[in-house]
Amino acid sequence: MSQHTQALTEFLAGLSYEQLPEAVISRTEDLFLDWLASALASQGAHPIPLFERYAQKMGPASGPAQILVNGQSSSAYFAALVNAASSHLVEQDDLHNSSVLHPATVVFPAALAAAQDLGKSGRELILASVAGYEAGIRIGEFLGRSHYRIFHTTATVGTLAAAVAVGKLLDFDQQQFTHLLGSAGTQAAGLWEFLRDAADSKQLHTAKAAADGLLAAYLTADGLTGAQNILEGEQGMAAGMSSDADPSKLSDRLGSRWALPETSFKFHASCRHTHPAADALLDLMQREQLQADDIASVVTRVHQGAIDVLGRVVVPQSVHQAKFSMGTVLGLIALYRKAGLPEFHEHALVDPRIGVFREKVSMQLDPEVDGAYPQRWLGRVEVSTVDGRTLHGSIDEPKGDPGNTLSRAELEDKFRRLVAFSGACNADQAEALVARVWALREQTDMSQVSLVGGKDHE
Amino acid sequence: MSQHTQALTEFLAGLSYEQLPEAVISRTEDLFLDWLASALASQGAHPIPLFERYAQKMGPASGPAQILVNGQSSSAYFAALVNAASSHLVEQDDLHNSSVLHPATVVFPAALAAAQDLGKSGRELILASVAGYEAGIRIGEFLGRSHYRIFHTTATVGTLAAAVAVGKLLDFDQQQFTHLLGSAGTQAAGLWEFLRDAADSKQLHTAKAAADGLLAAYLTADGLTGAQNILEGEQGMAAGMSSDADPSKLSDRLGSRWALPETSFKFHASCRHTHPAADALLDLMQREQLQADDIASVVTRVHQGAIDVLGRVVVPQSVHQAKFSMGTVLGLIALYRKAGLPEFHEHALVDPRIGVFREKVSMQLDPEVDGAYPQRWLGRVEVSTVDGRTLHGSIDEPKGDPGNTLSRAELEDKFRRLVAFSGACNADQAEALVARVWALREQTDMSQVSLVGGKDHE
Repeated sequence: MSQHTQALTEFLAGLSYEQLPEAVISRTEDLFLDWLASALASQGAHPIPLFERYAQKMGPASGPAQILVNGQSSSAYFAALVNAASSHLVEQDDLHNSSVLHPATVVFPAALAAAQDLGKSGRELILASVAGYEAGIRIGEFLGRSHYRIFHTTATVGTLAAAVAVGKLLDFDQQQFTHLLGSAGTQAAGLWEFLRDAADSKQLHTAKAAADGLLAAYLTADGLTGAQNILEGEQGMAAGMSSDADPSKLSDRLGSRWALPETSFKFHASCRHTHPAADALLDLMQREQLQADDIASVVTRVHQGAIDVLGRVVVPQSVHQAKFSMGTVLGLIALYRKAGLPEFHEHALVDPRIGVFREKVSMQLDPEVDGAYPQRWLGRVEVSTVDGRTLHGSIDEPKGDPGNTLSRAELEDKFRRLVAFSGACNADQAEALVARVWALREQTDMSQVSLVGGKDHE
Repeated sequence: MSQHTQALTEFLAGLSYEQLPEAVISRTEDLFLDWLASALASQGAHPIPLFERYAQKMGPASGPAQILVNGQSSSAYFAALVNAASSHLVEQDDLHNSSVLHPATVVFPAALAAAQDLGKSGRELILASVAGYEAGIRIGEFLGRSHYRIFHTTATVGTLAAAVAVGKLLDFDQQQFTHLLGSAGTQAAGLWEFLRDAADSKQLHTAKAAADGLLAAYLTADGLTGAQNILEGEQGMAAGMSSDADPSKLSDRLGSRWALPETSFKFHASCRHTHPAADALLDLMQREQLQADDIASVVTRVHQGAIDVLGRVVVPQSVHQAKFSMGTVLGLIALYRKAGLPEFHEHALVDPRIGVFREKVSMQLDPEVDGAYPQRWLGRVEVSTVDGRTLHGSIDEPKGDPGNTLSRAELEDKFRRLVAFSGACNADQAEALVARVWALREQTDMSQVSLVGGKDHE
């Protein structure tokens, strides 16, 4: 085992709730609420019912862990599976910039399911979630940009992040964490190929990452051994799935740098790679008082990762694919001034003006933007107006980033909008859930805390 | 989708039992019996009880599919999981040479679990298994040697092979098979790194491959879509996990070349990469009437894959690791003339003469052997005797290969030895199981056919 993996597993084994700064604890609660909103927002939407039916068919009739979208219960394994599928569907869950990892959608489903199964407290759930974020983000940074070009980091690294969270709930020592990384890392999978076809794999990826990570942790607790050097070994993750891995990232300022609060909330309901340009365009249009019709063309100056992920979508065939279409997102911004769930569902594929605007938008690799990425996601757009002007829009920190974050009031508002969108709960139920999450650190037994939507499930 | 993937999915959708040559059907029964022996042989051995307990904890109390090692039942998902973990433990399951895939340990657990769940016939089970072998072997050949250097092909490709078998039981059409490959391929995982530490990941790999493949098939049947070009696409399996992929392998002589009967049975209870040298040494020692003490050194001339997989093990710390130690395997051959399960468990780590012999053995890359691999696994050893002679041993087809295969009598004998080794059943029960497998094609409903060991389970 290398010094970096060793430092990471030592840190994970030693981490205690008392060590966590208040800002980290309260941000974990913020992220948890934001995650719960995303999970409930997908109620009833394809392909989530497929995962619900799979859990019913293959799992027990009921169990200690809650399935959020339908208020049923199951074993921890299937609750993690369904809740992780649910929470990544509406593209509103959080993102950590420099790792390009969506931590919430994999960490919280696994941690909540295990906490409910094991009867752990809210503080233990928070601690476990922090462990999952801190480890997952550093492993994502370690694997680097070359990994993300082919592999869906939230799927691959997500398996390890989920595993670490559950391992912390199981009070693992350093050796157990090492085995755990081995058993989780050797299950890590998820390819971007589905994106071109708008296939359902994104939900499969997060579902499996959370469930596989949980499986690795429970088996490790029972004595399953794993590779001791799965991250850096000659036949390990980096060897097989990266060409620019940087081991020093694994142990980067453990205990002094908190990676969790670096995580961004999503403001627009689209792929995060569209957000910098969307914010830059919105800012420019407001400043110059432009309407959509005033614009002849938009060149977005982007990092390579945006081209890799978004370049596949030419004319979106589904709402989900529309969230990966730069032209569609900028069209919603130009015409409606926002790109939330209602705009996507009501306008993105329907309003012909969106299609017209989409044709005006192109992406261009920009050395400055690419050089700053993934630490900073710079937004740069060049707009040519129909009256012949060339205007530049620029933002350095998209809405939702740590320096431009969402307040608790804004997070509550986002929560209300998302659960109303799916009809997962009425206004009173939404307020009750918000209150329950803000009291997370006071919960003594998560198996007694209901977080499901719907009036029948209270 | 490329022509090759299209040809493969067309073939899978169209394949019928009536098309199968008798030799393919009867060889499938042979392989099934050989697989059942391997599964039952691991009863009670670590880490199999961990998977049994996991299934009990996370799955239903009982279900339509049998768990072979303990006679319990569960949902198809957990039966596939536990049975696949079991059948790869004693290193006695089959191997297809040119794909370096162990098909049985991933295909049969998934196919049997689904056949029992769906109440399918023995013929449908045979047809589904053939589909899994034919697809898995070609996909393994497609991904090539570069894949196998880092990735455990039985884990990665095994996910797709298992998925295809279950998809055939679910009567998939071509479009469903395409979605299925997408959803299975994007879950494909498994790294060789565990081997250096003799960790338990090999069982985790086969367990997850079979279970994940089954999951992909059931979700596809319910409408989950997958990437249309997961094998050859720019962000697909070959792009991420191979540098020498050959798409033409995917459609290689579909319907005229039957890959299933190319599969080798394992004669020795060790890693297949040791078999050519073991057979060559045995042949040489018998021919020259050598004893172990007559031998000063053995140079085995091997292919690169043998060095990659076996080079990690210097002094084996466990019986399982001993099976990956060329020197230990040749020591057993030299001292006991065989390397079966009893020799490994009673002598490999215990007899000091094995350790002495191990030090005499080295591996050397041989261009001829490497060039023939993986189509042919040539055995070449150079022995220096203590009286100063240099002798050469050579075999071109290890025992168990198609041209040097095991008869039904030899397979029955292997079955009896393996189930006796673990105590999974007594002699009468063993005969009953053998008879049941030889009647596989006559079984009308696999949910009514018990294949579990032990007197309590009959």
